[in-house]
Amino acid sequence: MPQVHPMRWLFSLLVMLPLLVQAADPLPSWYNGASRQAIEQFVAAVTTEGSKDYVAPTERIAVFDNDGTLWSEQPMYFEVLFALDEVKRLAPQHPEWKTQQPFKAVLDGDQKALAASGTDGMMKIIVATHAGVSTEDFIAQTRRWLATAVHPKTRKPYTEMVYQPMLELLQYLRANGFKTYIVSGGEVAFMRAFAEEVYGIPPEQVIGTTLDTRFDDRNGSLSIQRLPKLAHNDDGPGKPVSIDSIIGRRPILAFGNSDGDLQMLQWTKAGPGKRFAGLVHHTDAKREWAYDRDSKVGRLDKALTSATSNGWTVVDMAREWQRVYPFDSIDSQ
Amino acid sequence: MPQVHPMRWLFSLLVMLPLLVQAADPLPSWYNGASRQAIEQFVAAVTTEGSKDYVAPTERIAVFDNDGTLWSEQPMYFEVLFALDEVKRLAPQHPEWKTQQPFKAVLDGDQKALAASGTDGMMKIIVATHAGVSTEDFIAQTRRWLATAVHPKTRKPYTEMVYQPMLELLQYLRANGFKTYIVSGGEVAFMRAFAEEVYGIPPEQVIGTTLDTRFDDRNGSLSIQRLPKLAHNDDGPGKPVSIDSIIGRRPILAFGNSDGDLQMLQWTKAGPGKRFAGLVHHTDAKREWAYDRDSKVGRLDKALTSATSNGWTVVDMAREWQRVYPFDSIDSQ
Repeated sequence: MPQVHPMRWLFSLLVMLPLLVQAADPLPSWYNGASRQAIEQFVAAVTTEGSKDYVAPTERIAVFDNDGTLWSEQPMYFEVLFALDEVKRLAPQHPEWKTQQPFKAVLDGDQKALAASGTDGMMKIIVATHAGVSTEDFIAQTRRWLATAVHPKTRKPYTEMVYQPMLELLQYLRANGFKTYIVSGGEVAFMRAFAEEVYGIPPEQVIGTTLDTRFDDRNGSLSIQRLPKLAHNDDGPGKPVSIDSIIGRRPILAFGNSDGDLQMLQWTKAGPGKRFAGLVHHTDAKREWAYDRDSKVGRLDKALTSATSNGWTVVDMAREWQRVYPFDSIDSQ
Repeated sequence: MPQVHPMRWLFSLLVMLPLLVQAADPLPSWYNGASRQAIEQFVAAVTTEGSKDYVAPTERIAVFDNDGTLWSEQPMYFEVLFALDEVKRLAPQHPEWKTQQPFKAVLDGDQKALAASGTDGMMKIIVATHAGVSTEDFIAQTRRWLATAVHPKTRKPYTEMVYQPMLELLQYLRANGFKTYIVSGGEVAFMRAFAEEVYGIPPEQVIGTTLDTRFDDRNGSLSIQRLPKLAHNDDGPGKPVSIDSIIGRRPILAFGNSDGDLQMLQWTKAGPGKRFAGLVHHTDAKREWAYDRDSKVGRLDKALTSATSNGWTVVDMAREWQRVYPFDSIDSQ
């Protein structure tokens, strides 16, 4: 064994110490508030063998909404910002867009006309930018966009605008034998482009909105082609439907942030035994955004009322999170 | 250490010996033929770190058809036999079936009229017996049927008519870091009723044909209700489509037995790196059934031609399997 100078050894220890402390605390970005305590008590209860609330590892299914729950969603869902950029990129191949709404509005930067096109207009934009391409090529294009695009306010890449406390929660659950899923209104291939790298959630655990697809065989060159038709809208009651169809088990923990998550939370809580339902409440205008009952994006109204009357966990972002984003300093509050 | 009589020790060893031998051989029901060798060579290649064919565990996705690949499918898909039994069970609630085809044919035991109703008739029977009920209740009813129904020829429960060599193959793959999936034309909830217990495949790894469903909230009593409308037909080109939609990764190993598996096998083989495509060839009229190009159930024609010209593995059941069913004796051939 080589000699080590005592001071050098002491120095190493001092360098390591904060890491060791962090290793001992799986949720360092959560203040010791009511939400953290509820999470830890739930996990202890369902993982303690012999406990009346014990749940076998195979049944430890945890589902998370994505937009507003794992990453930000203001001023607009990031996938919509992607679609708007895609309209501009694809415009040379679609000369008709110069005169067709809602595409004209996007190309002219006419926010008013775009808003006037409403949900139908937005669906046209989503379909035009998400279909007519193979799944493989779509994912490659999403990754190209994510690698270069930056958020209009923070100027950070979108994949850095994920919630550090939620990353820790995902990891903490997995370390306790949970299988973590995304169940989100986002289109499934868009989310798979980054979910494994950013959240540690593999493609087969990402559930979302889907388009119809077709197996294409061109003289032996095979691909899955995306068609301009919505197959499943994974929002509201569509969430328990996709959970039942794809997972085939009822989750024991669910986390969301908006009324689109209400039925998923209800479905999770209605099963037998101990269950956890959580909401991220956007209360932090300084570090993120503050919005709930009146927001156009990520409206939290009925689900907030339901959480209050049913005793679900509501995470007060401003008061309960020591950090919001990984790039925030620990002392940012 | 307590004293042990030498003869007692020797006796223990003799009792243990066959178990130890079996533990050493993960595929005891496979003769040492070409198929077994191809499987073992493939698994060794993709799991040996540093090998040019190495595949990381997360990418080790293996997909299996069910009917005719993991369990028998003669004289008719077992799920159809279930549906016919269900028509009889449900008939008192449907007096109109006494005069409506194809239900009348089922109730009268009129095989000729039933055959004449064709695929449309069969789809009516499937929908009538699989919809109008919650997923939970449907799975419970499937389990009741499986617990008591017996096969018309063997008089064995259907869940015992699974292929012992394929059970061993599933276990062998999982022991080598593979994630095993069912991708089958069978209806997904029907298969989930037994897949975990019988094959060790959990619900979230069972992919199949689906019906539309609806989230139902009756004054707080929640359920997923099955609707009388086909959502996805998981056969032929529908298999790579569901693999892409639900798994989001391309498998590296696929096993089927009929033309309905052709596109899944093609899709699996067309990916980069080393890939395995296998077919169970029903050549064993004595222990199981012998059929291929001319069979109405599980026709194996185009896929057999493709296997021959592309060098896929074709398992000759009669010559390569030491046992077919778990209830067969080891020396049954």
